[in-house]
Amino acid sequence: MKELVVIALGGNAIKQAGEEGTAQQQFANIDIASKEIVKLSQAGYKLVVTHGNGPQAGNLLIQQEEGKKLVPALPLNVVGGMTQGQIGYMFQNRLQNNFSLAGKSVPVVSLVTQVLVDKDDPDFQDPSKPVGPFYTEAEATSLKNDKGYVVKEAKPGVEKGWRRVVPSPEPIDIVEKEAIKSLIGSGAVTIACGGGGIPVKKDGKQIIGIEGVIDKDKTGNVLAQSVGADVLMILTDVEHALINYNKPNQEAVGAVSVEQMQKLYDEGHFLGGSMGPKVEAAMRFVRSTGKKSIITSLDKAGDALAGKTGTIISA
Amino acid sequence: MKELVVIALGGNAIKQAGEEGTAQQQFANIDIASKEIVKLSQAGYKLVVTHGNGPQAGNLLIQQEEGKKLVPALPLNVVGGMTQGQIGYMFQNRLQNNFSLAGKSVPVVSLVTQVLVDKDDPDFQDPSKPVGPFYTEAEATSLKNDKGYVVKEAKPGVEKGWRRVVPSPEPIDIVEKEAIKSLIGSGAVTIACGGGGIPVKKDGKQIIGIEGVIDKDKTGNVLAQSVGADVLMILTDVEHALINYNKPNQEAVGAVSVEQMQKLYDEGHFLGGSMGPKVEAAMRFVRSTGKKSIITSLDKAGDALAGKTGTIISA
Repeated sequence: MKELVVIALGGNAIKQAGEEGTAQQQFANIDIASKEIVKLSQAGYKLVVTHGNGPQAGNLLIQQEEGKKLVPALPLNVVGGMTQGQIGYMFQNRLQNNFSLAGKSVPVVSLVTQVLVDKDDPDFQDPSKPVGPFYTEAEATSLKNDKGYVVKEAKPGVEKGWRRVVPSPEPIDIVEKEAIKSLIGSGAVTIACGGGGIPVKKDGKQIIGIEGVIDKDKTGNVLAQSVGADVLMILTDVEHALINYNKPNQEAVGAVSVEQMQKLYDEGHFLGGSMGPKVEAAMRFVRSTGKKSIITSLDKAGDALAGKTGTIISA
Repeated sequence: MKELVVIALGGNAIKQAGEEGTAQQQFANIDIASKEIVKLSQAGYKLVVTHGNGPQAGNLLIQQEEGKKLVPALPLNVVGGMTQGQIGYMFQNRLQNNFSLAGKSVPVVSLVTQVLVDKDDPDFQDPSKPVGPFYTEAEATSLKNDKGYVVKEAKPGVEKGWRRVVPSPEPIDIVEKEAIKSLIGSGAVTIACGGGGIPVKKDGKQIIGIEGVIDKDKTGNVLAQSVGADVLMILTDVEHALINYNKPNQEAVGAVSVEQMQKLYDEGHFLGGSMGPKVEAAMRFVRSTGKKSIITSLDKAGDALAGKTGTIISA
């Protein structure tokens, strides 16, 4: 039996930038991703899939806003559950179909997953993750007053308007990890922790959903550690992490030690909102487990697992 | 070890008639249901929970309609996945919390579930299940022309306007039944087939989601048979099915044979949109398995399993 691999897919692998996000478009993108994942399974890897939900949650928040006079909007933790069901269904269906077309009978299942965060996470004091629609300053002010939302002006010159910002706390533990392990043990390709998982915090003996968003690659690391994965593979738009990005001396990062990667990270080569968190999640996994992390593109996943390409971080 | 029980809960156990459907209301209702379910688990029963999604899907369809100029509406199969994620999360969380308050460590998990229907089901020819918002006749006509929706006038005198109607085909098989069995085997309280399951039909080697709604009690029967349940328990607003409803000779149905229940059914005691499908689903389970079905209210579930109340249908 080959290695157990946790694959973290970006929400943009499901709804690409510029697309409206019709079901047809999302199913088409998911079909492409599913064909690659089926190839990895056929190559013998055991697979757990996690995925982002940014574009899907964004669309749902807009629908909730537009319908708010008729139907009460649901909080972000519930929206997280809804997008897990949405994307989980679409992936489950297309993975099953592509296994079937390949003549393989492999069970595929997706689980609603909650992820524990620390109730004292510093991000609760200064929320920074923008979610949902853009507002005018007046709308933003009334949301702040009426609903207690934290609102911030969008990036001047890049985006116009105001947005709600929510905490993005660090993931600590996967509430449903035992169920995920059972399903992996049963031979299923398991989809879990969609959108970084539904964030919950402890309140005495209870766990309570919170309005926040966990970074999906950081959750990918916690998931990979929880299930004893051999590889954390973060799939994105590029075959390699790049240093000296967009400069004459731009260079792809291939096989590196975690110390070498940390040095590049400290030198500021990886952008905060983009490659930075992926590199951070990948390094955490290598440091905690002594195993390897890969950052590459969907179509290079098989080659990267075989050591032929991608940014491969080892101990 | 006591019996394996499949519990089918109405969507109204989650959002009660007259409620707007805020997250707070839905969590409060689910908390009540969860306390009862935890009691059954503590009494030794192994449990699988399925639930309706009518009010939740209805709210989401309204939000999609209101937001359609900004965000494309998603089809009913995807909406089904979204409500499974929504309700699955809320139940999972409140069941976990109530187990925790009771000092028990019982895993709870919810699965995205597809349910196979026959592509030649007669209901595809004459769809009858109303879904989503009410329209004017002009709006209904344009939905018919633009989107190919089947639209029908609502019940004159009872409801005003026009609605989309979709097929409600018979459930045949649970696509993810092996995963559900694995999770039951692992000791988890498993939530599956929400909203009657996402309906899919075979198309060659593939399974394709369809725009329809499967009756959740009929799916409850197929689920109960698939996992080898000892009891199918359908929970509703009343402690017993009633005959001669609202007449001087109204009477509760207690313990009966499936033949006795069939006779009452044939005499027209159970209403089509309400108790009728529950009785039908309950009888199907008894006929196919020789085991028993129960129809009762949530708060009487434990007593009914102990044989003290409820409508109990045996072979």
